[in-house]
Amino acid sequence: MIDTLVEKIKKTNAPIVVGLDPKLGFIPDFILEKAYKDCGKTLEGAAQAILEFNKGIIDATHDLVPAVKPQIAMYEQFGLPGLVAFNETVKYAKSKGLVIIGDVKRGDIGSTSESYAIAHLGSIDIGGEKIKVFDEDFATVNPYLGSDGITPFTDVCKKEGKGIFILVKTSNPSSGEFQDKDMEGKPLYEHVGAKVHEWGKDLIGKCGYSSVGAVVGATYPEVGKVMRRVMPNTYILVPGYGAQGGKGKDLVHFFNDDGLGAIINSSRGIIAAYKNDAYSKYGEEGYADAARQAVIDMREDIETALN
Amino acid sequence: MIDTLVEKIKKTNAPIVVGLDPKLGFIPDFILEKAYKDCGKTLEGAAQAILEFNKGIIDATHDLVPAVKPQIAMYEQFGLPGLVAFNETVKYAKSKGLVIIGDVKRGDIGSTSESYAIAHLGSIDIGGEKIKVFDEDFATVNPYLGSDGITPFTDVCKKEGKGIFILVKTSNPSSGEFQDKDMEGKPLYEHVGAKVHEWGKDLIGKCGYSSVGAVVGATYPEVGKVMRRVMPNTYILVPGYGAQGGKGKDLVHFFNDDGLGAIINSSRGIIAAYKNDAYSKYGEEGYADAARQAVIDMREDIETALN
Repeated sequence: MIDTLVEKIKKTNAPIVVGLDPKLGFIPDFILEKAYKDCGKTLEGAAQAILEFNKGIIDATHDLVPAVKPQIAMYEQFGLPGLVAFNETVKYAKSKGLVIIGDVKRGDIGSTSESYAIAHLGSIDIGGEKIKVFDEDFATVNPYLGSDGITPFTDVCKKEGKGIFILVKTSNPSSGEFQDKDMEGKPLYEHVGAKVHEWGKDLIGKCGYSSVGAVVGATYPEVGKVMRRVMPNTYILVPGYGAQGGKGKDLVHFFNDDGLGAIINSSRGIIAAYKNDAYSKYGEEGYADAARQAVIDMREDIETALN
Repeated sequence: MIDTLVEKIKKTNAPIVVGLDPKLGFIPDFILEKAYKDCGKTLEGAAQAILEFNKGIIDATHDLVPAVKPQIAMYEQFGLPGLVAFNETVKYAKSKGLVIIGDVKRGDIGSTSESYAIAHLGSIDIGGEKIKVFDEDFATVNPYLGSDGITPFTDVCKKEGKGIFILVKTSNPSSGEFQDKDMEGKPLYEHVGAKVHEWGKDLIGKCGYSSVGAVVGATYPEVGKVMRRVMPNTYILVPGYGAQGGKGKDLVHFFNDDGLGAIINSSRGIIAAYKNDAYSKYGEEGYADAARQAVIDMREDIETALN
């Protein structure tokens, strides 16, 4: 799966993933009002609004970017209708040729981790019938439980040609509470990074990168520099650009000299761009056009920083 | 919520939670066949079988135990129909007076963690309407992201009278890869345990325990001993009893002198007891009676160990 992602990154010249985190507060009133009129102020109403909103964003950006990253928490909070919207979003984005990174941060042990891997990347066997479930292309995974939590995912990745991104150093202010603490001579995140390198060895694609990637926040560029060396064949998914404070120049260290090795996520900064002063001329009705312009500007910001 | 749980533990004299992890391999053929006949070998068929199976287990054990712990991965792997079965299982167990520990191991940052907390423990605000979502009583949470991942959960717990169990030392063989490593003089799990103690301070109930609990595996009794001291007011959810190798005598260290402070999970050992030689006389048709007897035997094993 990493080969497909890298190919799309090269083709679009945009190492960018659009984070589909559709909080109700980001959705224009005209979409919300229509959904509430159709379904009431219900889980179903919220789910309809989310899906409608997402389709607008996908339509306006799919030719510019290689991938989208729906954050499942934003759907799960609307219960079963919310998860229907998640499923439909995945399908719609796929139909437009996008790679899907399911930001699910799952992680458990043994057969339970296998079940999560099946849910998001694989096929379930029901009395001999193999059925695909949510069928994202990549999923994000939490490393706290060690190899028992990860190898069921890598096994499914091998079988189904999929990939994962493992949390190494997250973008939030308190990520250092455990991740930065010195552990036998180096911070925990470095131990996790070394394991990511190891877990990914059997999944290196033609492009030279592994389908086992890592998450390292844009808000910690110095960590990016170190981790780029610790995990030379690892693609780094970088959240925290834009709204969380990460800037184009901070991103340089996450890339290799080949201009590859990192993909930068922006959620709010793209999908809610119309609420930002810089794009206010688009208005609510133009939320999707604002998102398109925000992607173009982000691509330029990254390109400038890398050159 | 911890007061409700402790009250039920005292009333049943059983510090036991039944893990509702209904793999298809655990479900008797007569249930599977009926479901496949009704719905085919589909996600819906699997979901029907799971729910039917769970209801049998709940009917046969609800008067003996305080709580059940559905493992959401086992439902999520059957997609949307699986999650419908999860939702119905939660509702059915509640209707029988059981406390629900949603084993969801979620964890993210800021507003995303808040969304997970809302999904599993809280209410979502849709245009001013407050709607409960999956509405478990407790949820399990992953600590890797630090306080930013946890406080959105504790905030929801305060508002809604709910609780969480935070992963400290998991029961699996490779849990030591990161959790046991020495970090500034003590293992990572001790740092996490100290934080759990701190995070739970504002949520201590009348019973003297906090609604912020911890997960420590039965397979590491020596760790249980240490963590019992580090987190004196913390309820410990103990997986790994039975099928994973934990025995009654291993559990002693997880309890306080008041006979409280721990609740032991068994999944396979109860719900698939009929597949175990010791309960084979019940046969497939008697799977629920076998589960009931397994609970009675487990209660005795724990009681003997504690006395």
